[in-house]
Amino acid sequence: MNYKGIGQILGKIMILEGIMLIIPCIVSFIYNESIINSVAFIVPMVLLWTLGIILQHFKPERKGLYQKEAFATVAFAWIIMTLFAAIPYIINREIPNYIDAVFEMMSGFTTTGASIVEDVTLLSHSSLFWRSFTHWIGGMGILVFILIFIPESKEGSSLYLLKAESPGPKVGKLSSKMKMTSTILYLIYLGLTILEIVFLLFSPDAIGPDGKVYEMNLFNSMLTAFGTAGTGGFGFVADSMEHFSNYSQYVISTFLILFGINFSLYFLILIGKIKAVLKNEELRVYFGVVFAAIALIMFDLILNKVNSFAELKNVNFEETFRISFFQVASIITTAGYTNANFDLWPEVSKMVLIILMLTGAMAGSTCGGIKMSRIVIFFKGIVMKIKRIINPRYVAKMQLEGEILEEDTVNDVFAFIAIYILVIVGVVFILCFDPACKNFSQPFLTNITASISCVSNIGPGLASVGPYASFAEYSYFSKIILTLTMLTGRLEIFPVLILFSKKTWQKM
Amino acid sequence: MNYKGIGQILGKIMILEGIMLIIPCIVSFIYNESIINSVAFIVPMVLLWTLGIILQHFKPERKGLYQKEAFATVAFAWIIMTLFAAIPYIINREIPNYIDAVFEMMSGFTTTGASIVEDVTLLSHSSLFWRSFTHWIGGMGILVFILIFIPESKEGSSLYLLKAESPGPKVGKLSSKMKMTSTILYLIYLGLTILEIVFLLFSPDAIGPDGKVYEMNLFNSMLTAFGTAGTGGFGFVADSMEHFSNYSQYVISTFLILFGINFSLYFLILIGKIKAVLKNEELRVYFGVVFAAIALIMFDLILNKVNSFAELKNVNFEETFRISFFQVASIITTAGYTNANFDLWPEVSKMVLIILMLTGAMAGSTCGGIKMSRIVIFFKGIVMKIKRIINPRYVAKMQLEGEILEEDTVNDVFAFIAIYILVIVGVVFILCFDPACKNFSQPFLTNITASISCVSNIGPGLASVGPYASFAEYSYFSKIILTLTMLTGRLEIFPVLILFSKKTWQKM
Repeated sequence: MNYKGIGQILGKIMILEGIMLIIPCIVSFIYNESIINSVAFIVPMVLLWTLGIILQHFKPERKGLYQKEAFATVAFAWIIMTLFAAIPYIINREIPNYIDAVFEMMSGFTTTGASIVEDVTLLSHSSLFWRSFTHWIGGMGILVFILIFIPESKEGSSLYLLKAESPGPKVGKLSSKMKMTSTILYLIYLGLTILEIVFLLFSPDAIGPDGKVYEMNLFNSMLTAFGTAGTGGFGFVADSMEHFSNYSQYVISTFLILFGINFSLYFLILIGKIKAVLKNEELRVYFGVVFAAIALIMFDLILNKVNSFAELKNVNFEETFRISFFQVASIITTAGYTNANFDLWPEVSKMVLIILMLTGAMAGSTCGGIKMSRIVIFFKGIVMKIKRIINPRYVAKMQLEGEILEEDTVNDVFAFIAIYILVIVGVVFILCFDPACKNFSQPFLTNITASISCVSNIGPGLASVGPYASFAEYSYFSKIILTLTMLTGRLEIFPVLILFSKKTWQKM
Repeated sequence: MNYKGIGQILGKIMILEGIMLIIPCIVSFIYNESIINSVAFIVPMVLLWTLGIILQHFKPERKGLYQKEAFATVAFAWIIMTLFAAIPYIINREIPNYIDAVFEMMSGFTTTGASIVEDVTLLSHSSLFWRSFTHWIGGMGILVFILIFIPESKEGSSLYLLKAESPGPKVGKLSSKMKMTSTILYLIYLGLTILEIVFLLFSPDAIGPDGKVYEMNLFNSMLTAFGTAGTGGFGFVADSMEHFSNYSQYVISTFLILFGINFSLYFLILIGKIKAVLKNEELRVYFGVVFAAIALIMFDLILNKVNSFAELKNVNFEETFRISFFQVASIITTAGYTNANFDLWPEVSKMVLIILMLTGAMAGSTCGGIKMSRIVIFFKGIVMKIKRIINPRYVAKMQLEGEILEEDTVNDVFAFIAIYILVIVGVVFILCFDPACKNFSQPFLTNITASISCVSNIGPGLASVGPYASFAEYSYFSKIILTLTMLTGRLEIFPVLILFSKKTWQKM
């Protein structure tokens, strides 16, 4: 292992994280918070800079990284970032337990949005900001960001780093240079985020059931946009997005769908290749699934309320459409914002959400889950298998996005899905040892949706981890497992898996 | 499609099924049942013989079958057998609805053992016999049986037929001749069944909680042995096996484990190659999983009952061991007999059972599920993938049962598991539309275990389809879906899947 080479990259990431901690620190000044709130961010900042600078002084054994080293680097980078990002919360005592804080921050960086905070209204502005900001950092990926600044190596180590961190079966290179690719991705990401903030700022105020005003001021708009862009979904007021105006809810739903699109398609739009975008199969399937899911849930919700045609006039179609659209957008993009307690929805609607939790949106977006492109390849692969039984001499000539779909790609997808399910089942198995299960009304549903929710980086599950519940009830052991699960899901399994292999640590 | 060739084979199967219907007919005479009970079996018998003999007069277009034709033949054979086997129940009015009867018979042939009969004590002896006898027929497979009688073709059609019907990733040829392989398999199957009947006949009588005597007479012993051998699990008295003597329960558990072993290993024992058997990896994993599951469940059940070491002396260890052993044996072999209401067990025990429902026992046995050998290959495949990330030039040289594990085999297993899960999720999705879900206390757990239970050919699930509940509450539409699911699981997906492809029906 090129430990020093890895150390240098990790050092750069630590320095960068230190810089990012300045922002919540400024927030704490703006809101005149007590001195401890600023100190909370300054302590990890100083620690990160010190360690980061020390790490820069090591001389790597060789240029570039092998694949396994790149994978390990990415996994370590995310773990280290999380461990330091959690420090502010134990200093300002807003999340006094370190394991809880680590869970919360891993949930932030991996854009899961699962929370152990039972009442977010008790958190300070700086804490809320940092929490949501980690979504924005983790959404596009921290290594992708670092690639903008480190020199391109010939050995392909940049590509390996990107491969380990980017979601989806393939890495979409937008330019021959990785540096350029990263820069373009981040500019699109930033642009869309700013656009959403602007749209949100036009929101009318809304009055909640408690008589409180829910206002999309700059602070709330930014936090919402961070959660949307990273498809994270941390709430920062009571009941997630339910009490914000309908206009806000529509803006969020729309931007969620937009952030679920492969970013390379935005690049194609920017360079004028709109036809290619419209032809994109994954995009069509994505929109198809979104429409079908909304229609199915609306139908199910209405059917659940009315017993005759006459009763139809009592149905609030706008509201039904709005909550269906919002929840489908929020769950398929694995954000996890809510504007309705879908745990109380009828069976079909809940099952649709569970399936969307598994699929996720498009590869190359900021979303979690298996990804639409893999689902498309999966079904094409099944057709290929059937064709081969019908005619054993059949030569595969299926296409995906205009290119021949390679057998290897199909096999990788089958393997990925099987292993993904194994992770889910494994985590459910571990969770059922938790003594907290005894207090759950539906322990199996709770555990399986907690597991899917964490591996697909969604946030809420159903039953005792439903949208208006939290993960607080789980034991610390379970929380550690779920923290690792979120990382495993975000990095698409293998970068985390290889950390546990003895061979990774042997000389080669 | 060689329709006439397929028709000839199907005709032979129909004649054979007609012959088998003689046996329950004799049973109805022995027990002096009313004339309608005999007529119930004679009607389908005459129908089957007539149609079967007509089909023999067609001249096939060519000798042998292509793979797709063999696969379709097997699927059709099972569907036709089921449709005719269900007729007796609508004639004797013991299962008045044909869809229910078809469900029950598919459950019988596929050795699922899921039942829509709410009180089996109301069934006549001949009905009970026929029900359990279908387990025995379906266990080893009907085509495997037919292969004993039809002339061997050079084109490999026998192998294709066996491949479509035999469980597991590979077809184990015990002899160069398929005819010989089939004969050996059936002789071992018959021998073990008779051995179990003999053992069961030594059972002491037991008194149930209702004061009724539960006696392992010849009739009950045969039915139990049919259900054990085929790993089906239809009960024929109240509460499955709970009220039979402890001795009977131990005999059943032991034979279940034995029927979960790959039959080719018995052949190896018969020809004296005991060392090869002891070295068998799949066997070791199978026993390992069985022991681990029993230990885990015992531990969980005891922990659930006692709060201190002092209380340990109140625990009935024999009973705890017996129910753990029995349920593990019954679920891993996908039989589904019960001697305790495991739906009331604590969370860990239930989760262990759910995992065993998915894995099943060994390939080449009479069990359902994914099969141990696929699980072994799955994990080896994951290790292979990790090794390739660590060293991209790694050349796979993993072994299974002393042979190099081919990449193709590994890829097939990944694909199989992914598609298996897809079937489960798909069926849960369809089931949640059922209005009956509203009456379930845990609809998701009910539907997912119903789905797993049917695709893995187990029988009981959890919650509203738990061991002491039945599938009767589901709508007819759901029952039809579950009927197809059982067949899909039994034939390991592809033979059923190709029926739905247009290409199967086109000339080639």
